[in-house]
Amino acid sequence: MLRKATSALCTRLSSQQTAGLVRAMGTRTEYDTFGPLEVPDDKLWGAQTQRSIQNFKIGGPTERMPEPVVRAFGVLKGAAAKVNMELGVLDAKVGNAVVQAATEVAEGKLSDHFPLVVWQTGSGTQSNMNANEVIANRAIQVLGGRLGDKAVVHPNDHVNKGQSSNDTFPTVMYIAGVTEVYERLLPGLKQLHAALDAKAKQFDKIIKIGRTHTQDATPLTLGQEFSGYTTQVEYGIARVEAALPRLCMLAQGGTAVGTGLNAKVGFAEQVAATVAADTGFPFVTAPNKFEALAAHDAVVEMSGALNTVAASLMKVANDIRFLGSGPRCGLGELSLPENEPGSSIMPGKVNPTQCEALTMVCAQVMGNHVAITIGGSSGHFELNVFKPMLIRNLLHSIRLLGDASVSFTDNCVSGIVANEGRIAQLLHESLMLVTALNNQIGYDKAAAIAKKAHKEGSTLKQAALALGHCTEAEFEAWVRPEDMIAPK
Amino acid sequence: MLRKATSALCTRLSSQQTAGLVRAMGTRTEYDTFGPLEVPDDKLWGAQTQRSIQNFKIGGPTERMPEPVVRAFGVLKGAAAKVNMELGVLDAKVGNAVVQAATEVAEGKLSDHFPLVVWQTGSGTQSNMNANEVIANRAIQVLGGRLGDKAVVHPNDHVNKGQSSNDTFPTVMYIAGVTEVYERLLPGLKQLHAALDAKAKQFDKIIKIGRTHTQDATPLTLGQEFSGYTTQVEYGIARVEAALPRLCMLAQGGTAVGTGLNAKVGFAEQVAATVAADTGFPFVTAPNKFEALAAHDAVVEMSGALNTVAASLMKVANDIRFLGSGPRCGLGELSLPENEPGSSIMPGKVNPTQCEALTMVCAQVMGNHVAITIGGSSGHFELNVFKPMLIRNLLHSIRLLGDASVSFTDNCVSGIVANEGRIAQLLHESLMLVTALNNQIGYDKAAAIAKKAHKEGSTLKQAALALGHCTEAEFEAWVRPEDMIAPK
Amino acid sequence: MLRKATSALCTRLSSQQTAGLVRAMGTRTEYDTFGPLEVPDDKLWGAQTQRSIQNFKIGGPTERMPEPVVRAFGVLKGAAAKVNMELGVLDAKVGNAVVQAATEVAEGKLSDHFPLVVWQTGSGTQSNMNANEVIANRAIQVLGGRLGDKAVVHPNDHVNKGQSSNDTFPTVMYIAGVTEVYERLLPGLKQLHAALDAKAKQFDKIIKIGRTHTQDATPLTLGQEFSGYTTQVEYGIARVEAALPRLCMLAQGGTAVGTGLNAKVGFAEQVAATVAADTGFPFVTAPNKFEALAAHDAVVEMSGALNTVAASLMKVANDIRFLGSGPRCGLGELSLPENEPGSSIMPGKVNPTQCEALTMVCAQVMGNHVAITIGGSSGHFELNVFKPMLIRNLLHSIRLLGDASVSFTDNCVSGIVANEGRIAQLLHESLMLVTALNNQIGYDKAAAIAKKAHKEGSTLKQAALALGHCTEAEFEAWVRPEDMIAPK
Amino acid sequence: MLRKATSALCTRLSSQQTAGLVRAMGTRTEYDTFGPLEVPDDKLWGAQTQRSIQNFKIGGPTERMPEPVVRAFGVLKGAAAKVNMELGVLDAKVGNAVVQAATEVAEGKLSDHFPLVVWQTGSGTQSNMNANEVIANRAIQVLGGRLGDKAVVHPNDHVNKGQSSNDTFPTVMYIAGVTEVYERLLPGLKQLHAALDAKAKQFDKIIKIGRTHTQDATPLTLGQEFSGYTTQVEYGIARVEAALPRLCMLAQGGTAVGTGLNAKVGFAEQVAATVAADTGFPFVTAPNKFEALAAHDAVVEMSGALNTVAASLMKVANDIRFLGSGPRCGLGELSLPENEPGSSIMPGKVNPTQCEALTMVCAQVMGNHVAITIGGSSGHFELNVFKPMLIRNLLHSIRLLGDASVSFTDNCVSGIVANEGRIAQLLHESLMLVTALNNQIGYDKAAAIAKKAHKEGSTLKQAALALGHCTEAEFEAWVRPEDMIAPK
Repeated sequence: MLRKATSALCTRLSSQQTAGLVRAMGTRTEYDTFGPLEVPDDKLWGAQTQRSIQNFKIGGPTERMPEPVVRAFGVLKGAAAKVNMELGVLDAKVGNAVVQAATEVAEGKLSDHFPLVVWQTGSGTQSNMNANEVIANRAIQVLGGRLGDKAVVHPNDHVNKGQSSNDTFPTVMYIAGVTEVYERLLPGLKQLHAALDAKAKQFDKIIKIGRTHTQDATPLTLGQEFSGYTTQVEYGIARVEAALPRLCMLAQGGTAVGTGLNAKVGFAEQVAATVAADTGFPFVTAPNKFEALAAHDAVVEMSGALNTVAASLMKVANDIRFLGSGPRCGLGELSLPENEPGSSIMPGKVNPTQCEALTMVCAQVMGNHVAITIGGSSGHFELNVFKPMLIRNLLHSIRLLGDASVSFTDNCVSGIVANEGRIAQLLHESLMLVTALNNQIGYDKAAAIAKKAHKEGSTLKQAALALGHCTEAEFEAWVRPEDMIAPK
Repeated sequence: MLRKATSALCTRLSSQQTAGLVRAMGTRTEYDTFGPLEVPDDKLWGAQTQRSIQNFKIGGPTERMPEPVVRAFGVLKGAAAKVNMELGVLDAKVGNAVVQAATEVAEGKLSDHFPLVVWQTGSGTQSNMNANEVIANRAIQVLGGRLGDKAVVHPNDHVNKGQSSNDTFPTVMYIAGVTEVYERLLPGLKQLHAALDAKAKQFDKIIKIGRTHTQDATPLTLGQEFSGYTTQVEYGIARVEAALPRLCMLAQGGTAVGTGLNAKVGFAEQVAATVAADTGFPFVTAPNKFEALAAHDAVVEMSGALNTVAASLMKVANDIRFLGSGPRCGLGELSLPENEPGSSIMPGKVNPTQCEALTMVCAQVMGNHVAITIGGSSGHFELNVFKPMLIRNLLHSIRLLGDASVSFTDNCVSGIVANEGRIAQLLHESLMLVTALNNQIGYDKAAAIAKKAHKEGSTLKQAALALGHCTEAEFEAWVRPEDMIAPK
Repeated sequence: MLRKATSALCTRLSSQQTAGLVRAMGTRTEYDTFGPLEVPDDKLWGAQTQRSIQNFKIGGPTERMPEPVVRAFGVLKGAAAKVNMELGVLDAKVGNAVVQAATEVAEGKLSDHFPLVVWQTGSGTQSNMNANEVIANRAIQVLGGRLGDKAVVHPNDHVNKGQSSNDTFPTVMYIAGVTEVYERLLPGLKQLHAALDAKAKQFDKIIKIGRTHTQDATPLTLGQEFSGYTTQVEYGIARVEAALPRLCMLAQGGTAVGTGLNAKVGFAEQVAATVAADTGFPFVTAPNKFEALAAHDAVVEMSGALNTVAASLMKVANDIRFLGSGPRCGLGELSLPENEPGSSIMPGKVNPTQCEALTMVCAQVMGNHVAITIGGSSGHFELNVFKPMLIRNLLHSIRLLGDASVSFTDNCVSGIVANEGRIAQLLHESLMLVTALNNQIGYDKAAAIAKKAHKEGSTLKQAALALGHCTEAEFEAWVRPEDMIAPK
Repeated sequence: MLRKATSALCTRLSSQQTAGLVRAMGTRTEYDTFGPLEVPDDKLWGAQTQRSIQNFKIGGPTERMPEPVVRAFGVLKGAAAKVNMELGVLDAKVGNAVVQAATEVAEGKLSDHFPLVVWQTGSGTQSNMNANEVIANRAIQVLGGRLGDKAVVHPNDHVNKGQSSNDTFPTVMYIAGVTEVYERLLPGLKQLHAALDAKAKQFDKIIKIGRTHTQDATPLTLGQEFSGYTTQVEYGIARVEAALPRLCMLAQGGTAVGTGLNAKVGFAEQVAATVAADTGFPFVTAPNKFEALAAHDAVVEMSGALNTVAASLMKVANDIRFLGSGPRCGLGELSLPENEPGSSIMPGKVNPTQCEALTMVCAQVMGNHVAITIGGSSGHFELNVFKPMLIRNLLHSIRLLGDASVSFTDNCVSGIVANEGRIAQLLHESLMLVTALNNQIGYDKAAAIAKKAHKEGSTLKQAALALGHCTEAEFEAWVRPEDMIAPK
């Protein structure tokens, strides 16, 4: 408990202060090929992780490698150990301990032992070593050994067996991305789609004024308007799903440069199959490992799908914000749920705060997409070295879009109420219903009616009767918005 | 000579000067609901087009609506006239004249009569009217009438029958985009793919040093390296094709706000079928017309695919530029075709100019994508009014990527020669071949060899023999790059 | 008529067809170090230009090097010749002919002789040679020689004397950019600023409802609202001006890699001074030539200023579009000038087309900025090779913002009319005027009034009197919007 | 201490779990106008904060409002209380307690009490209320009252006196941004500048081959090359400083819509002066409060400066990465510090990890800039509601650039060593030194020498002597790189 307290405290202290504090609390000595380093003795990481903490003081705790990546390391390292045991190149006792330790990482139980920030080596080497070190030390604990005793379980020789940072890191990137898409983004979008679709059906009979160029236009139903939103989200789901196959292609087995040097034949395929079985997602081994290490076009592609979803949701949220504007001086066609005090002075003022959160998310996703595009295009030769930045932004976009979709659904869309009185009032005040007269009295007379009404601020009917172009009965029979919402 | 001089002159005159020049050459009077306007009498456009010229003096002739959009108007207006005749709402004599005129527009014969810039009404209304006016006047000519005599053929009542700018412009956007993808982009990418694939096969036996983090790494074949590029382009083609279905969904039939008011039942489906038949591309009517007018997510999506292709090609071109760097002080593994004088002083200096043109194109496509994303997310209510900007950028990106792929293929990739001597020299000087000794003499001794060679600037073999860790024969047998390019 | 037909024809022919056409019209043979090439005999360009036409078939005529760059070449080459004569390294007869030819280029008289597209060598080498060739040939004409006779005037030895593409092209980039900023952008922004400021003053007494979160808020004057726009444009001008100093630093004199090899001491400073004198703009020689060739941060910086201006104008145009929405079903506070038929059916429907053109321009500028950022960050060693793309986008953004500012001013802002009746109606219907009662009857009673009015759809006064919290006279005295528009 | 332990624990628990846990640990009831809510009794926040936690479950703990904003709230609320006391509208006892509490917030002592994420109301209202609630409760503690007893200190009436979220949040945005620029970014950039400048001076005499188009070119000194980097950073500092004045203009005093309703005359100016005095930074009150609430162009502008800095640093880091590539198969001109094991196999392989971290940061800053541009352009009427997203991205970019500059300086630049042997070898192997012969033997003979050397792989001297164009003594006298690094 004390350890955790310290951990919380540390997030507010400078790293220098932290270093001092940590030493005071007890450390052990770990080694890498550069020599010995003191590591906090309540942490499972080793020397290479500790070295990275000291070399990359960039951005603080919020910049740590995202947890889905940490967990994906658990998934991968467990799968690799299983395959290595199957292939007969890893001792079962060590292997099973590695699998157990890796499983704990996959379950998020050891996430506190992954302190490294995204802004490190561009291949994610240090996070791979962080995973190797933590899993090795945890496996050593399982086997009753002494932390740091590589003779029991070795981070490189056992945990990283047949692997390279250059193929493990892209593999965990894709495992993390695919998992978050399936578990967070798609459920969120589907929930939003269902809520919009329910509203489209609920509002099916409410005829309202249309607006083009933000100006009054011919009518449609509020349900039709919402069906546009529903369709956008429906296509968005399809776009995300269409980008998944290439994100499911795992680099594992390419090792250092894509050739698979030092990996066993079959390792690549079996690891992918094991990861697929363990996660339930359709991972396969990448057909071309050179592409899989040197480029991350699949991330750029998926980010492009997220960018399109963001463009869609920006439009939907903007519409709902404006349709709900008011209460007296805006469009006022919708009432949005009131979730928090807008102002203690102005009752009825509901700020469209969920629209605001969602549109901010959309802008962020668009920005993240540019960062991903730049990083994705900047690989050289056998390795793209913008990997941590790429997956950070992809996961950020996925998480934000998924969470914001749920928040927007639950706290806004589901509670939207149509202000039918206001909608009817605007519809009937509108001048464009005159369009219905074209076929009865001709364009010129219809135009004269509309112009007169506009000039005088009168209704169309008043103008029509004043001009004598039709009787009241005729007007009532001809000018029917309900006849204007479909082709004939 | 005179012709060209005039042509040159015109492009350099301000629009006011041009107007004066044109008047001198003769004008006729055309009308719209705002009143009369003088139009150059050698032009087929009418009053609304002329009014737009005067209201939107933004950017000059290079900013005109792209020709694929103009031609797509020909395709659409012809299809609409055919369907209107089939539906019995358009007189055959007028209809056939309209079809003939529209065909000429589709063939590019009347492109000079489309002077409007992209920076106009955001719905493209004025370009729709430009098409209506030109086709009407040309049909009037066909029927022997007097230009501007709307009694013969009316831009709105005949050419635009059953249509609205709000559904025609998105329809021509998508016709133009899909056509350019099929006719320019995909052929270009496929040509590039074939050339890269041929090189991958040609270079299949050339073993070279790999580079990760831009640093020396384990070997691979030059063919493997190129296979990564080939795979990137192959996936790029798949990405573009995956985005096509939603770009093939035509808005036509939605009319003003998506309801289809004033269109006949069946018009939407029949126009899409006719356009598909006339172009040979798989167009269908959009299942939801509200989405089709109010959002252009399909453009954002396709641009996302282009953006991914650009990220891929940026990587490929950068690699080729660096691998071809030299001739003496760079990597020097590749010789690129020498297409123009680099410098009269330095023979052998081949500037990688095709790589430079291609990477500039890629940066442009990435920028265009942001413009598209912003415009695509900024629609309101029933209409997105960033339409001309959206299609301008999409077509720009398609054209640039398609053309640059061909230029890069023909003037660079196809002529790449591997400098086998240089490649072999670098490979054998490299220290990382020591990796092969790990399994024979153990990691520690191997490391000692590498460290000694690095420190002394010697070869690995020299160091190995000096340390007595193996014999020359053993070294030759064990350190074989050709055994390091695949899993075992 | 024939002239225009030819012109139209040419723009529609493929380059191969054009080549054929041109040959038919007569060619002459020009040479470079690669050998002879046929050049159209009515064109002044030489072999290197012709070779580039053939090697870079990317994008067509709209992609040509922007004319301000062409003209800037005239400015620079004339200045260089003058300085070379002063320094005694260029013969006066040849030098004066070069100055005359360069002046014609600067005046735009020879722009038709610059056919090359932007998508060429990334250093702009080929456009530099285009300028050298055209000026040399024109100078040869002046001197009565035979086109292509380099013995009379040599493109390299005379026109390019003491220069390299690597310093001339960045120099003309900056000359062109600065010139366009001064001559097109700043005047446009200042015109817009003046028009907005006039409206702010004109609307100074019109009190209206404020809107935050797009919801009704406390009042302000329409003049105050416009003063925000005015301030945004005022700061925008300052931002552009603040970015000018570094764009005024000319690379000329750095020659190939920044060292100035083969240039005379003093050449750099004298050329900058001559260009400054000839243009009237405050050009200086770049203090560090290595930075001036290898990076174009000054372009990224200026584009950042344009991006900020675009963000400002996007906001202003969006506000005006929404405040002018209606006529019956929108906010309706402003009437925007009606410049073209919106719809023949709906009089009073004024589409905010100038807002639409301007916001499309803003999105484009934001996209161009990303292309510039990517290109600007992608230089290597002694040379950035994204130069033509960089200046293309910078000039595009400058031109679009400058022109659109003028169009928006003339065709929209200057003609905006406040709908005072509508503004007053909305103001007095609003519930938030209740805020004024807080200090008189306390928050709780004020809140009760507002809640009752909101619930019942009544006015604040009705609710206040019904609740008995004040008399009518008190209400009239206390609830005064004119007292709510400033601190007390 | 226990509280902190819980806090640490909570960051790994889902919010549902947290809710359960927190209740178990004890809560108290707080109220807002929506009613009562349970709040963890070890937290100082109130009902509105708690409500926001529940309504905006978007993104988790890493998405919390950045700490510089939290601290800036302390600065502002303290300054406002001081001014309110001076203006006689706030009781001294309450006011002093508020000042004490606010000071603790400013010092970061209460940061754990600010749990809200960025993805909330777009005006930052909930974070303003979070600050009001925490400061009120802490002041209540100071005064010996009971938490939540608003009769002692009221979040709105006392802490928020004369303020609105609409002016406080933009004020803290700018306080936070300016503070971070002065305290983190500028020191980081200056440190980097000094280190580069030291290297430029240290390397002043080392002549090396230049590279343009990534190809061999004429020579320069390594110091000259570094002077380009130095200049880029120098200008970058100037760019950031040039953007500061508009970011120093505080919105405080504008209240709800910019009019200053309910604020005292003078409040705006005095608060700005107090904040300036308390922070030591040159804050002033914004001349136009309507612009200050409705737009955040100053953030877009500063982000544009950061974007330019990112473009500069991307170039510098890329150059250093490539110049340090090798050790055997790259350019190898520089040795970068070896900070961590690159590979246990390949001694001498130093991965340029600091370059990689820095270039990832640069890509992120470019992406953040796009998010800022979109959010900055998307305000409506009297309020921009992308505020939390805007400041999140600005602070992210500032922090990353500042920290990464220091890390890059300390762990890379300062330890760069020139490989003089390799540099000399490449220089003398290069063919372009032939340029020096032009003035002695003429271009044609020089070219012949270079061509012969290139073809035969010989040295220039060998070729020159073989062709008999000069003697060895002449060659030695004429071909001197040290004479090629400046104008003559």
